[in-house]
Amino acid sequence: MLIYHTHTSYFSAAHKIELTHLSLEENQILFGKCANPNWHGHNYTLLVTIKGQINADGYIFPKRALDQLIEEKIIQKIDGSNLNLNTAFMNNLMPSTELIAAQIWQALQQDIQIQNCELHKITLWETKNNFIEYFGT
Amino acid sequence: MLIYHTHTSYFSAAHKIELTHLSLEENQILFGKCANPNWHGHNYTLLVTIKGQINADGYIFPKRALDQLIEEKIIQKIDGSNLNLNTAFMNNLMPSTELIAAQIWQALQQDIQIQNCELHKITLWETKNNFIEYFGT
Amino acid sequence: MLIYHTHTSYFSAAHKIELTHLSLEENQILFGKCANPNWHGHNYTLLVTIKGQINADGYIFPKRALDQLIEEKIIQKIDGSNLNLNTAFMNNLMPSTELIAAQIWQALQQDIQIQNCELHKITLWETKNNFIEYFGT
Amino acid sequence: MLIYHTHTSYFSAAHKIELTHLSLEENQILFGKCANPNWHGHNYTLLVTIKGQINADGYIFPKRALDQLIEEKIIQKIDGSNLNLNTAFMNNLMPSTELIAAQIWQALQQDIQIQNCELHKITLWETKNNFIEYFGT
Amino acid sequence: MLIYHTHTSYFSAAHKIELTHLSLEENQILFGKCANPNWHGHNYTLLVTIKGQINADGYIFPKRALDQLIEEKIIQKIDGSNLNLNTAFMNNLMPSTELIAAQIWQALQQDIQIQNCELHKITLWETKNNFIEYFGT
Amino acid sequence: MLIYHTHTSYFSAAHKIELTHLSLEENQILFGKCANPNWHGHNYTLLVTIKGQINADGYIFPKRALDQLIEEKIIQKIDGSNLNLNTAFMNNLMPSTELIAAQIWQALQQDIQIQNCELHKITLWETKNNFIEYFGT
Repeated sequence: MLIYHTHTSYFSAAHKIELTHLSLEENQILFGKCANPNWHGHNYTLLVTIKGQINADGYIFPKRALDQLIEEKIIQKIDGSNLNLNTAFMNNLMPSTELIAAQIWQALQQDIQIQNCELHKITLWETKNNFIEYFGT
Repeated sequence: MLIYHTHTSYFSAAHKIELTHLSLEENQILFGKCANPNWHGHNYTLLVTIKGQINADGYIFPKRALDQLIEEKIIQKIDGSNLNLNTAFMNNLMPSTELIAAQIWQALQQDIQIQNCELHKITLWETKNNFIEYFGT
Repeated sequence: MLIYHTHTSYFSAAHKIELTHLSLEENQILFGKCANPNWHGHNYTLLVTIKGQINADGYIFPKRALDQLIEEKIIQKIDGSNLNLNTAFMNNLMPSTELIAAQIWQALQQDIQIQNCELHKITLWETKNNFIEYFGT
Repeated sequence: MLIYHTHTSYFSAAHKIELTHLSLEENQILFGKCANPNWHGHNYTLLVTIKGQINADGYIFPKRALDQLIEEKIIQKIDGSNLNLNTAFMNNLMPSTELIAAQIWQALQQDIQIQNCELHKITLWETKNNFIEYFGT
Repeated sequence: MLIYHTHTSYFSAAHKIELTHLSLEENQILFGKCANPNWHGHNYTLLVTIKGQINADGYIFPKRALDQLIEEKIIQKIDGSNLNLNTAFMNNLMPSTELIAAQIWQALQQDIQIQNCELHKITLWETKNNFIEYFGT
Repeated sequence: MLIYHTHTSYFSAAHKIELTHLSLEENQILFGKCANPNWHGHNYTLLVTIKGQINADGYIFPKRALDQLIEEKIIQKIDGSNLNLNTAFMNNLMPSTELIAAQIWQALQQDIQIQNCELHKITLWETKNNFIEYFGT
């Protein structure tokens, strides 16, 4: 039995979208208020989906271990931070929702590969009206 | 990197389900109160999912352009309308959630096909308890 | 111990706002798309709040009886209906959220007055962004 | 046109996670408070997704029939029950979210196979932060 | 400036409603499935509202201290427990939503009375459709 | 008939909590990650509640006018901004949720006092787990 298990968590962070090869006006045309130079921020909602064959005990990954892994590898690293300035996590990438999701994938992928499980999808809500899904490729 | 980006919006509309080859009683057996002759209505929640390869600037479609496209092509056309009478949008199709979703797909598909993007899925919630997904085929 | 108990339920209905002493244009300036002549509709969320002294058994009103009362007196009367045409419930009043809430108060008030309870508040959400509260006076 | 239709419902139940080949302490390390011996419980949210070719009348499965099927086959069987003791439904399986989802699949699969429809996915939320998806294999 | 500050938290617990002076049938007529003898459970949502004069630093109670207080005095005591058997917290009272709310009030009241603050209201959701409010008298 | 009407809106902003008479460590003990020096941010949810006697046309304040007032006086001023640096709106006050709510009250109060209406309450959610209510005194 192939099971998909999704864990939801939350973090708050500051960011701005600023493509350095564009002027402020051009950035604002593309991204609206997200390009404002003095930062703004969001309450992000993160859904981590793993998949795997169910084991003889009836689950695919122990819930507490998954909680702790996401808390340690993601929430502790980015909650309350400024994503543009958080070079340890974002590696100097523009903190678009797309690239934040991709960095979260990188930070979790290896640790999920136990017990016949693998990371399946990162879903990241930036506001109640927009979210990104990334499957790792 | 293949990214899925989903945009959420909202509209309110009237409709009724009335299969003309059936009697009122037969319609009500199949569709319950949705078949009442004097109309009723819903707050619909629409999720438009596009997919595409991420560009060098870290996104797949500019958020403001996606907002404006859905506002212009969908919300302005059907918010506050009676879907049975809205022949411009529904083309005389029965406004079941299934067929409203299909018409939304038709209205958006071409304009999404820029910048290596394509429309991936229309998700349409009719009430908090029922939604339809349509992938275009 | 004074306890407030709130019960949530849902109904879908059609309506339009049409002040008959105003033109269509004037109605649309005041109410926007809610004034469109061909109706539209909403998924309403209704919260009924009762209050009363807790009894020796630890509650103020039996939950099942409250469920059945609201189902019978409200939901069965207006779910799936057109509120402008539902003269039995709306008594020819304009179905603004304010007046729908007031009619719901009238329909429930007497039946709540048992077991030292009384009706305290009607809360009615018309969309996810607007709600009305009415305390009966 | 291939359509996916999802129906949402709700049930409340007691359970505990207790792998009988492990000690209480070992169970609590894996499952935290979910392993407490005196039971606890959840408000589960169940999403049943069916898929099928749209018929000439514009839908894939009549909504009322789907409501009644899920009410009869699932909600009436497990709402208000203790899942560890509900051997009729759980067949003595550990009531992990994974295995509850799998039993729900078994209970619904055959009755969905009418009108060119088939059961596509069971999604089961145990808390607001965790859900399982199962596709039947 | 008088400010009301509300903190939301979550716990899962088992319970049943069983008035010992009534038969099982009489309990089920009053409380439905909540009277089933083998327990069931809920994901409770708890809102604690405090009020107080704003201090010179612009707040009424430090957020982290409020988090820790509710975690220590409430969540650690009842999350994952069986409320009928949790005599330390429920003091042998029937775990109706009304009386759980009253016990939460008792457990928090004194510790909130610092810095010109006082406990104002306990709101307790048992399901997505029912909640109780208690103001301490 | 006295009616309360609540309008919901949304804005995203950056802020940090930094009491200047305290060290960074002292600020972090009181406010946790909200005191991080490089900013963070939130998706705020704002509920504006007005009250008034219902008029002969069945409402207390035209919905479109309320929408436009809140959009112009609040959302346009603070959405996408850094609240610590937004001195035009915050008047150099610390952007605690309490004081943001109070500034929103100041910005709206006069314009609501038409048609026998008055501003009743500002409710401001900072995260899904914390909100402030302010009644103007």
